[in-house]
Amino acid sequence: MPKSSPPVFGPIDGIAPGHEFANRLELWSAGVHRQTQAGISARQDRGAESIVLSGGYEDDEDLGAVIIYTGRGGRSTETAQQVADQTLTGANLELVRNEQLGLPLRVTRKVTTGHSSFYRYAGLYRVVSHWAENGKSGHRVWRFRLELLPEAAAVEQAPSSVTTGQTALFDLAGQAMAEPTASYGPAPRQEVTTLRIVRDTAVTRRVKLLHNYCCQVCGVRLHGAAGPYAEAAHIRPLGAPHHGPDVLENVLCLCPNHHVLFDLGSFSVADDGQLLGLSGRLRLHKKHLLNPAFLAYQRLHFYQPNAEVRGE
Amino acid sequence: MPKSSPPVFGPIDGIAPGHEFANRLELWSAGVHRQTQAGISARQDRGAESIVLSGGYEDDEDLGAVIIYTGRGGRSTETAQQVADQTLTGANLELVRNEQLGLPLRVTRKVTTGHSSFYRYAGLYRVVSHWAENGKSGHRVWRFRLELLPEAAAVEQAPSSVTTGQTALFDLAGQAMAEPTASYGPAPRQEVTTLRIVRDTAVTRRVKLLHNYCCQVCGVRLHGAAGPYAEAAHIRPLGAPHHGPDVLENVLCLCPNHHVLFDLGSFSVADDGQLLGLSGRLRLHKKHLLNPAFLAYQRLHFYQPNAEVRGE
Repeated sequence: MPKSSPPVFGPIDGIAPGHEFANRLELWSAGVHRQTQAGISARQDRGAESIVLSGGYEDDEDLGAVIIYTGRGGRSTETAQQVADQTLTGANLELVRNEQLGLPLRVTRKVTTGHSSFYRYAGLYRVVSHWAENGKSGHRVWRFRLELLPEAAAVEQAPSSVTTGQTALFDLAGQAMAEPTASYGPAPRQEVTTLRIVRDTAVTRRVKLLHNYCCQVCGVRLHGAAGPYAEAAHIRPLGAPHHGPDVLENVLCLCPNHHVLFDLGSFSVADDGQLLGLSGRLRLHKKHLLNPAFLAYQRLHFYQPNAEVRGE
Repeated sequence: MPKSSPPVFGPIDGIAPGHEFANRLELWSAGVHRQTQAGISARQDRGAESIVLSGGYEDDEDLGAVIIYTGRGGRSTETAQQVADQTLTGANLELVRNEQLGLPLRVTRKVTTGHSSFYRYAGLYRVVSHWAENGKSGHRVWRFRLELLPEAAAVEQAPSSVTTGQTALFDLAGQAMAEPTASYGPAPRQEVTTLRIVRDTAVTRRVKLLHNYCCQVCGVRLHGAAGPYAEAAHIRPLGAPHHGPDVLENVLCLCPNHHVLFDLGSFSVADDGQLLGLSGRLRLHKKHLLNPAFLAYQRLHFYQPNAEVRGE
């Protein structure tokens, strides 16, 4: 399997979840994990194809369908202890690319029983979010929340029965592009989706009403068939491991564009309302107070200054 | 249960999926469906709380976890046949509001066995999409795709253990609003989410590369940590019942804002690239051809002219 072959995201033909491999070489031969030693198999600027969980990182949390995975780097080659900060570069940045593009990640676990061990393919996971924190060692590590993809999401497909032979508009010829595209596995399983979770609670409804559905960053107000549309973004996220509360002072009213950018860590808000990573100030409402502790949490764990420079 | 009580979205305490009711009155008394005759229990400008499927509409398709539901109106009171077009008003518009805000919908089925019948509560569904089509009668009906909410999505909650007592910023007092808010059921089950499905396939990746991640409507290009971010929108949707194909000529490259608006039917594209419902023209690329049949499908079934006027 030459290094120049395109990355393969998604399932490997003939390998179902539960499939067992005696060792890393078997895993490599099957095309499940195309690295013989590294825990992350990633391709620069394309994304990460696969990870192997072997219990090497003290900060990993494997909860089965949810995995809190620790990025690469900063470990001593001798003791395997975390001895330096991790950076959001290399394979770690490729995991962010999976999150951003909705690329699936194959996950394999090392299973140790007594004196022997083997590897068991767990299936496809999506990268749901990423953040920085101080790990058990005190050093800064990047963490990734991985969630098992439902089988249905991975196999849903579009039927090919619709005729597409009508005259194409707008231009001349439908030339094939020279740019090599990634293989997404066999056709019936090629579709992968990103689920953008937009929460609606009494609190998120209230923040949208207070701002009259105008984005607190850009002021835009979208109009759908059933009235205006905005999204509420939690500053300190709900759910494990962040445990942010669903309260008004932890919520922003944003348009979908700024919601995506906020979740990706492209911008943040200073305590005085100044935007960081974007110019201007947050639009405020006198009945909508923000808690500086939640803003500080987002800045510390999610904001990536100069993301737009680093990312390209 | 007075009519002026706030609408109740989500589960009713003590009523689990599978719960049976002898008749509509019992269903009403339990608060599951607060109408004694109508199939949709909706509140103007708030959304729909509940529906009862009683097999009254010839166009309904009940597939269990997925229901293709037909809107209200246009039926003869004598024959119950569809004799006129339905409009996207009243309870039908409230179902769109559920889609737009992510409000859950209680679904109850009428079960007929021999000469008798009873009602069985099916659980919470989300309104995933809506479109117009000519029903079996030849009259225009509005159809709604409903999907059973996973139990986990309905019950996920934010722990209340985080301290929120820090000094609030930006203003003076955190007064309670006079505006009555909807009840979302007991606290542990109050959260409801909308899943915005963003697909990533070889085709959607290619359309984003062709447009360099710029929105074909507004030209904006968003920057995330792992590079630029755009979304691909299928013009004729994938999956049942639309069966649009995942091909380049059926896909637009959009920013999240215009993706949301396109999915909500707020704008459309004429065969010559002129935008409908928005000013300006679609930005084109010579290697990205659009199929006029898919544009026509979207205009016919999804586009709602003047949505921004009607919606407010």
